[in-house]
Amino acid sequence: MRILVSNDDGIYSQGINFLVNALKEIGDVTVVAPLYEQSAVGHAITMKVPLRVVEVNKNGKLFGYGVDGTPADCVKMGIRNIMPEPPDLVVSGINHGSNTATNIVYSGTVSAAREAAIMDFPAIAISLTSHNCTRFLEAGNFAKKIVDEVYKNGLKKGTLLNINIPDVAAEFIKGVMLTKQGRSKWDDVYEKRIDPYGKEYYWLTGNFIDLDHDLTFDQFAVKNNYISVTPVHFDLTDYETYDVMNNWKIENIKLNP
Amino acid sequence: MRILVSNDDGIYSQGINFLVNALKEIGDVTVVAPLYEQSAVGHAITMKVPLRVVEVNKNGKLFGYGVDGTPADCVKMGIRNIMPEPPDLVVSGINHGSNTATNIVYSGTVSAAREAAIMDFPAIAISLTSHNCTRFLEAGNFAKKIVDEVYKNGLKKGTLLNINIPDVAAEFIKGVMLTKQGRSKWDDVYEKRIDPYGKEYYWLTGNFIDLDHDLTFDQFAVKNNYISVTPVHFDLTDYETYDVMNNWKIENIKLNP
Repeated sequence: MRILVSNDDGIYSQGINFLVNALKEIGDVTVVAPLYEQSAVGHAITMKVPLRVVEVNKNGKLFGYGVDGTPADCVKMGIRNIMPEPPDLVVSGINHGSNTATNIVYSGTVSAAREAAIMDFPAIAISLTSHNCTRFLEAGNFAKKIVDEVYKNGLKKGTLLNINIPDVAAEFIKGVMLTKQGRSKWDDVYEKRIDPYGKEYYWLTGNFIDLDHDLTFDQFAVKNNYISVTPVHFDLTDYETYDVMNNWKIENIKLNP
Repeated sequence: MRILVSNDDGIYSQGINFLVNALKEIGDVTVVAPLYEQSAVGHAITMKVPLRVVEVNKNGKLFGYGVDGTPADCVKMGIRNIMPEPPDLVVSGINHGSNTATNIVYSGTVSAAREAAIMDFPAIAISLTSHNCTRFLEAGNFAKKIVDEVYKNGLKKGTLLNINIPDVAAEFIKGVMLTKQGRSKWDDVYEKRIDPYGKEYYWLTGNFIDLDHDLTFDQFAVKNNYISVTPVHFDLTDYETYDVMNNWKIENIKLNP
């Protein structure tokens, strides 16, 4: 099995090391990941400037390819220009911190997997839910198991799995839960500061508002020490509103001013 | 009606001028838009560096506020820190070029509207489908009409409308079509070049593959000179796969290595 690995924390992060070590036991791994941290870049791609690719060594051996772009860039570049043959699977992670609920929208980790899904490759995004990241080894082990499941069951074209693993010791994990994207989100605050030259600048901060209270939502499952597995796609159509809007009769809008 | 206007082409672009001129006839418009072009940044937000806000004048009068960040940053900043009262509606555009099918995923224009939807404000993204942009005036007129429709009918929290307007004379527009996000997408190619110092670099290019052949898909509707109106949300859950995955029995995955 040929596996392309990427992430958004960058090729020098710890999480990608553990993911690569785990997946090397079950497949032929190619790493193409951002040279610099790309958290919260969402599904950005680089078009206005060209990209560079460099070989990155770890422990004196070729570890993978670093790209001075976004996670989505890395997946495109890995599949189109770096891998001699297309991958059987693309895995993104292990992210340092959770990617649940509304955070999925901003996540570079999920966007790397989503780019693979757009390109018709099965894909998995894996995140460890705390920035302390004490349990990368266990998360890597779970990555192998979920890859097995995807291999065994297949995944519809255009779909990826978004996995969040609680960062707790194995004995505290209550199980694996099939979940939906939660509704929890950030209540943003911009903190105003004054720079040494007397000019204002603003830092994004805020509080995460827990709006999920049901184990079938990723955020609540993870909070209760379940591993969450959410199938995600890139069809953003709101079909419920589509049905409602049939009654709007927008075809009757007069086009003349 | 208080309207927040943003875009991804930047506060100095032509499209936003036409949008503001049109919407000023029906509401109180505040402009908060990127200082620099932000096409294809997707739903990126700025967290690692602070943001600056500057007043931007046009024709000797305050036009709006320029932010050195992404479209999503601008919407957050506009609502949280710039507008004295929250908007009744957020409108993003008029984009120079179409945002149909898979392009929605990469679009800064759509992401600005989506950020508003995440924050529970009704939102509209408006794009003119050619980079020649000969018909901004007509597109601005349509913006007013669709704002009327949203005001009249209401929009479910978390939903935005993604509008694409063919860049042709009014007499060639065939009508307004309620649509779904199409499946058309880019077949990417990275063009390899050598810089003056002998080093390789790569430009993203490619061909847009038309996979839609039904007027209920945005891309095909627009290609056939219909204005497309697609309801979009940010719940990325793939419910079809969710149902299928109930048979995977992932709760039985053994967690010990």
